[in-house]
Amino acid sequence: MPRKILKYPTQPLEVWPGRSIRELTEGMLSTGFQGRKLAEAVEVWAQMLRKKQAVVWLGMSGAMVPAGMRKVISYLIKRRMIDVLVTTGANLYHDLYEARGRKHYIGTHLVDDVKLRKYRVDRIYDVFADELGFYKTDLWIERRFCKELVDGYRYSTREISYLLGKFISKVAVDKDSILVSAYRSGVPIFCPALNDSALGFSIMFANRRRNRRIIIDSLKDVEESSRITEKAKASGVVYIGGGVPKNFIQQTAVIASYQTRHDRSHSYAVQISTEAPMWGGLSGCTFEEAQSWGKIHRRARKVMCYSDATIALPVVAHALSEKFKRLRRDVPVFEWKKSGELELRYESMKL
Amino acid sequence: MPRKILKYPTQPLEVWPGRSIRELTEGMLSTGFQGRKLAEAVEVWAQMLRKKQAVVWLGMSGAMVPAGMRKVISYLIKRRMIDVLVTTGANLYHDLYEARGRKHYIGTHLVDDVKLRKYRVDRIYDVFADELGFYKTDLWIERRFCKELVDGYRYSTREISYLLGKFISKVAVDKDSILVSAYRSGVPIFCPALNDSALGFSIMFANRRRNRRIIIDSLKDVEESSRITEKAKASGVVYIGGGVPKNFIQQTAVIASYQTRHDRSHSYAVQISTEAPMWGGLSGCTFEEAQSWGKIHRRARKVMCYSDATIALPVVAHALSEKFKRLRRDVPVFEWKKSGELELRYESMKL
Amino acid sequence: MPRKILKYPTQPLEVWPGRSIRELTEGMLSTGFQGRKLAEAVEVWAQMLRKKQAVVWLGMSGAMVPAGMRKVISYLIKRRMIDVLVTTGANLYHDLYEARGRKHYIGTHLVDDVKLRKYRVDRIYDVFADELGFYKTDLWIERRFCKELVDGYRYSTREISYLLGKFISKVAVDKDSILVSAYRSGVPIFCPALNDSALGFSIMFANRRRNRRIIIDSLKDVEESSRITEKAKASGVVYIGGGVPKNFIQQTAVIASYQTRHDRSHSYAVQISTEAPMWGGLSGCTFEEAQSWGKIHRRARKVMCYSDATIALPVVAHALSEKFKRLRRDVPVFEWKKSGELELRYESMKL
Amino acid sequence: MPRKILKYPTQPLEVWPGRSIRELTEGMLSTGFQGRKLAEAVEVWAQMLRKKQAVVWLGMSGAMVPAGMRKVISYLIKRRMIDVLVTTGANLYHDLYEARGRKHYIGTHLVDDVKLRKYRVDRIYDVFADELGFYKTDLWIERRFCKELVDGYRYSTREISYLLGKFISKVAVDKDSILVSAYRSGVPIFCPALNDSALGFSIMFANRRRNRRIIIDSLKDVEESSRITEKAKASGVVYIGGGVPKNFIQQTAVIASYQTRHDRSHSYAVQISTEAPMWGGLSGCTFEEAQSWGKIHRRARKVMCYSDATIALPVVAHALSEKFKRLRRDVPVFEWKKSGELELRYESMKL
Repeated sequence: MPRKILKYPTQPLEVWPGRSIRELTEGMLSTGFQGRKLAEAVEVWAQMLRKKQAVVWLGMSGAMVPAGMRKVISYLIKRRMIDVLVTTGANLYHDLYEARGRKHYIGTHLVDDVKLRKYRVDRIYDVFADELGFYKTDLWIERRFCKELVDGYRYSTREISYLLGKFISKVAVDKDSILVSAYRSGVPIFCPALNDSALGFSIMFANRRRNRRIIIDSLKDVEESSRITEKAKASGVVYIGGGVPKNFIQQTAVIASYQTRHDRSHSYAVQISTEAPMWGGLSGCTFEEAQSWGKIHRRARKVMCYSDATIALPVVAHALSEKFKRLRRDVPVFEWKKSGELELRYESMKL
Repeated sequence: MPRKILKYPTQPLEVWPGRSIRELTEGMLSTGFQGRKLAEAVEVWAQMLRKKQAVVWLGMSGAMVPAGMRKVISYLIKRRMIDVLVTTGANLYHDLYEARGRKHYIGTHLVDDVKLRKYRVDRIYDVFADELGFYKTDLWIERRFCKELVDGYRYSTREISYLLGKFISKVAVDKDSILVSAYRSGVPIFCPALNDSALGFSIMFANRRRNRRIIIDSLKDVEESSRITEKAKASGVVYIGGGVPKNFIQQTAVIASYQTRHDRSHSYAVQISTEAPMWGGLSGCTFEEAQSWGKIHRRARKVMCYSDATIALPVVAHALSEKFKRLRRDVPVFEWKKSGELELRYESMKL
Repeated sequence: MPRKILKYPTQPLEVWPGRSIRELTEGMLSTGFQGRKLAEAVEVWAQMLRKKQAVVWLGMSGAMVPAGMRKVISYLIKRRMIDVLVTTGANLYHDLYEARGRKHYIGTHLVDDVKLRKYRVDRIYDVFADELGFYKTDLWIERRFCKELVDGYRYSTREISYLLGKFISKVAVDKDSILVSAYRSGVPIFCPALNDSALGFSIMFANRRRNRRIIIDSLKDVEESSRITEKAKASGVVYIGGGVPKNFIQQTAVIASYQTRHDRSHSYAVQISTEAPMWGGLSGCTFEEAQSWGKIHRRARKVMCYSDATIALPVVAHALSEKFKRLRRDVPVFEWKKSGELELRYESMKL
Repeated sequence: MPRKILKYPTQPLEVWPGRSIRELTEGMLSTGFQGRKLAEAVEVWAQMLRKKQAVVWLGMSGAMVPAGMRKVISYLIKRRMIDVLVTTGANLYHDLYEARGRKHYIGTHLVDDVKLRKYRVDRIYDVFADELGFYKTDLWIERRFCKELVDGYRYSTREISYLLGKFISKVAVDKDSILVSAYRSGVPIFCPALNDSALGFSIMFANRRRNRRIIIDSLKDVEESSRITEKAKASGVVYIGGGVPKNFIQQTAVIASYQTRHDRSHSYAVQISTEAPMWGGLSGCTFEEAQSWGKIHRRARKVMCYSDATIALPVVAHALSEKFKRLRRDVPVFEWKKSGELELRYESMKL
């Protein structure tokens, strides 16, 4: 019996200069602990991309844009290694901020924050930013972007993100942002807690100060997002961190299963996160726990890699880029009808 | 010079049977590490309660209701140790579920989740629940509660929570829930990502299946919540976990300062959480970092205690209950006008 | 089937002033997450104490003495809630330092350490100490204590700790230290990495500078400690943190099983720690993992509570103190022969 | 003033297939959070190697060999990217186990450990091993290796490691082990808690069962190791995890400063670890804290990267391998005299 349990020996990882990142992660498949998990994350993600007519969700929380992960996400969008993005208002806001030519700065977490306050420098761990730049971005949203929005219309955050991407694509300095890439690649972005960000409160200020009546209907997000999992032939999920984006994508499986009376749980699941399960929160809960809820399929390929995403994501993205120098996929194309219904078709693309 | 630095010796904590919880935390003030922080959390919270005309916010993420913290929160509400609650849809949903007489169960995290799935038992770390009970709760929301709601009206989640509390107070088995206590005590509840929960999707189902037009306007949450920090004479924050509730309360300070052109940063801050700062997320960021943003006042009394809330919160709540066997406070009373304006007055109460 | 899985409902924890700490932890038994684990830690520890002729090991790493846990440990020793202590050199050193009348001080982790260096103030997270006091303690060990030691004799750290306790009991200001309590209560202390501390290097300095030949034979520690688990009728383990103390106690089970050709795995196991299992280290490994090695019995009562010990330990110790206002136990009495053999007998005591 | 604070903008990391690992970490230098720290770890380590006549210490805790990091360490030894190794008994033991041709196996942490016990399969998180193989390794140490040791001689663990490396180099299947590489490259290995491992207890069994009198004098480790920091022109430290190895290397600075009456604190410091500072332990304490003790120089280049070493170490090692395709260093050569004195000279080598 031990023969079956003790089947595949680990292989001590060798070091050689010039080893490609893909070769590195392939070598790490035969090691242990989170290094192996990182390597498995690459494999499971690759399987999603090879699966015929699967929809790949990316849930992203944490201050990934200030941490310099913006172009990694844009790359994943443009290469269609993801099909739908669910993220926080902050990430969209900071993406917009950089798209308009503003910068984040290399800082340090060992600093006197009261002094930073004096200089109106805002800190995000070891990244600094100029509060004046934020203020001008806020005003730009309130005055310029909100002009694009129609009073009384009930927007979903997917619609807001689409319009934001479209608008930035015309005016921005850096047209390579997450919002613009998603707009151009047909990747919908949901931001279920948009109200919990400067993006949200700047639109609120348009209402309050400029007598507007812009409505963000948070139920419309639930409606539109769940349609995707209902319609998809198969779905895979990738979570960078936990938070609302993770739960929101997980719940599409529950809603879709209720609605269709079929098991619509996700078939592939990857999480890169530092959230541990023992605190009981959804952010850190295991995919096994999610199986009890029917959010993740009982035979799903799944891997949880405990790592700061700013370390793991660059490695995983490069390994995927080398694994798929050319990627031919049935890329999902989404079209929401006025009725709320979704038309989902697939286009075979070389990416 | 060392004389000033080395002024207050630590006191090894003594053990004696019958020591009250308040005496315990007072003893822990002279120890070190997170034990001392826990004791300081009691002190800073007590200072908020003693501060004249302060508004005390509680932000709560994590599955606190399934973990048995429901009556602790109710206690804090009823004794008015908090004045506003910001939480997740899940906590309100599970509170409703228990209010209707359903139970969570003592389980284990060491279990075969695929087997749980078979029996329709949902796991939250080491707590189990009956999926059928969830399903019936969903239907109750969709069919019964949504009847109370008006089509086309733009609800804030505060209004939804109020109506839910009011409705449950009439029909529920356990009238001592968070929602009911808050309704009865005049404590508003915001739930900025209500859409990210079964509470949210059940209302969505009312729209989809029953041809309703219920709108939850997520910008209205920003509007209403920021008014509180604008109007409050002083504000204190207590965070159980991080997530959207923490950020949402923090941002009221930014919005209120924008709006009033005065510094409206919070003057007291307590966080009980296991989120560490090095991952760069808002959940785990220090209150020092928040000072750079002007969310927390530069001279604020603040303490971060790294602990699972299910350990720390019961200790803190009991210590407070003993510190304030009678609590006389200027309790804030909130009244939102149709215009969105808030009337905030204080009533002196003995609690 | 769900009936069996869903048997014991959780009970939302209530708050009332005057609740005893024992009542609190008993209430927490019906909650979830780490709060319940804390309560279970009390229960499992209590079971060890009620078990006839069991030996209770305490492994303690981390800077527990600087953090003010010194009298908690003394209490556990004097009440014989533990029978053997395995700890770090640092904890014994800091205990000695305080026993000689020196103090640790309430500090802060938000400080300029380069400035502290200038003033010769040493920092342990938020605890400060006077480096001069350390220096004098080092000299005391090197000059005074080492006079008690015999050149050429191979000491185990148990013997060093015993002699240190004996010597301090005569000269110390505070006779209530861990070392003195253990000496007086017949509780042996092992310190397998004594060389990794100021206690170790001060004895080394006696050899180097004073031409002594004091030998600490680290294999003798293995020999003596494993005899305990060989001879004990049953054994229970409590770990505060992980590190060498945890592994050292765990390995006594392996050695004893080799030696006796019987299963000598520990029957009760409690760990209070913040070390998570996913990093693969022994400190954070689960007791389940330990079962695969035969270190923990396959039917052992075991609980891992993830918490900073400075929070959890005071609560657990007080709960135990109330559970056992009078404790009658068969207390193990240890006597090592010159041959290395151990005579272990039990004395029934009221404590 | 903000101009100075906001000087270096972050650069969003780009993704391209074929990017070398060195290019990747160089790109990560301009990002944020732990990704940047990882990149800085490469830089600080490189600075140590470029520093004239510096001694580079590696402290390694955690089950790095079972996790497949054995050849990474061997590589660092052979390329003399480290000069002294301090590690746990377990790592040396598992290295020996693999050197003798035994294997670790790819397992899973989601397993029934009681079943593993039945099959005598030992688990280390997601790595399995054959207990019989361990048993035979134990016997090999007890019967074969101990024959090489002399009764009554007081061994330091450096001497034990040297002899073990020498002996394995003759008999082993895989001559590329850590022990053999270190033996051949003149890199001393200290193992301050050798007694806390199967390596330790197997030597103890030689004493107990075979009537031997092998002595491991733990004070000799302190003596020998501190000489290095006393004599070195400069020293740098790299910590994989914390534990005894970290503290042991840190304390050489304290001892050396006492002894020489000069500041012998380490000038470069890198730690890759998941241990957080808020728990107060030495494993997770910051290098800033270490500066207050004079263990790390007040102007030291230092970086703490929070990551599982099985992810970070492979990346760092490959980046270094590419940075130094040829490495010319003044490599320290150590020779301990019978008196305990150390002769330290440097040899310029191309590696």
